[in-house]
Amino acid sequence: MDPESLSKAFVEHYYSTFDTNRGNLGGLYQETSMLSFEGEKIQGGTAIVSKLTSLPFQQCKHNITTVDFQPSGPAGGMLVFVSGNLQLAGEQHTLKFSQMFHLMPTPQGSFYVQNDIFRLNYA
Amino acid sequence: MDPESLSKAFVEHYYSTFDTNRGNLGGLYQETSMLSFEGEKIQGGTAIVSKLTSLPFQQCKHNITTVDFQPSGPAGGMLVFVSGNLQLAGEQHTLKFSQMFHLMPTPQGSFYVQNDIFRLNYA
Repeated sequence: MDPESLSKAFVEHYYSTFDTNRGNLGGLYQETSMLSFEGEKIQGGTAIVSKLTSLPFQQCKHNITTVDFQPSGPAGGMLVFVSGNLQLAGEQHTLKFSQMFHLMPTPQGSFYVQNDIFRLNYA
Repeated sequence: MDPESLSKAFVEHYYSTFDTNRGNLGGLYQETSMLSFEGEKIQGGTAIVSKLTSLPFQQCKHNITTVDFQPSGPAGGMLVFVSGNLQLAGEQHTLKFSQMFHLMPTPQGSFYVQNDIFRLNYA
């Protein structure tokens, strides 16, 4: 899969999974994976999914505005940079966010999320 | 230098150089470096500095809101994720932006910018 198709497929998969059942995101992370969520640092797939599922809202919808991607270096990784809006159930206003992922290849030919940094962009 | 000090020193150096004489940013990039600027892809330090110096404003001021950082993997790289506001000379309103850098170590013990992705966050 070419880098653009890979990045867009990942973004589609990640946010559609987040918005339907974010407990299912665990398969995208490994124990070395790192998440920075609004400045809070969490390491390891289990802890990351625990954090995501404990966020204080039941339903949400991510609307993606931009997706940028670049290869991260000779190890075959891919950097994916996303901006968009987040709509929480019951809230009228959307929240703007930016998020970056560092995808690394697995020996099986797939990718996992090594790095994940999320920030809301407050007005 | 520990990762937090490195990241903060880089952010301070990058934006203060950008805001005083962005033509001097060339030393931070190498010929393999990549910039995505509002979706436009530019490769190589010379082309990147040419892009930055040709932006249609003379003076600007970056005000940094958040800095997140994570090691990018065994090659010793560092991911730095920045959000903030950009004030252009003569403009009343500020522009919100997000930017990520992938810093890679040089054999001399310094770091260069391998990846740079910049996006304005429009309201």
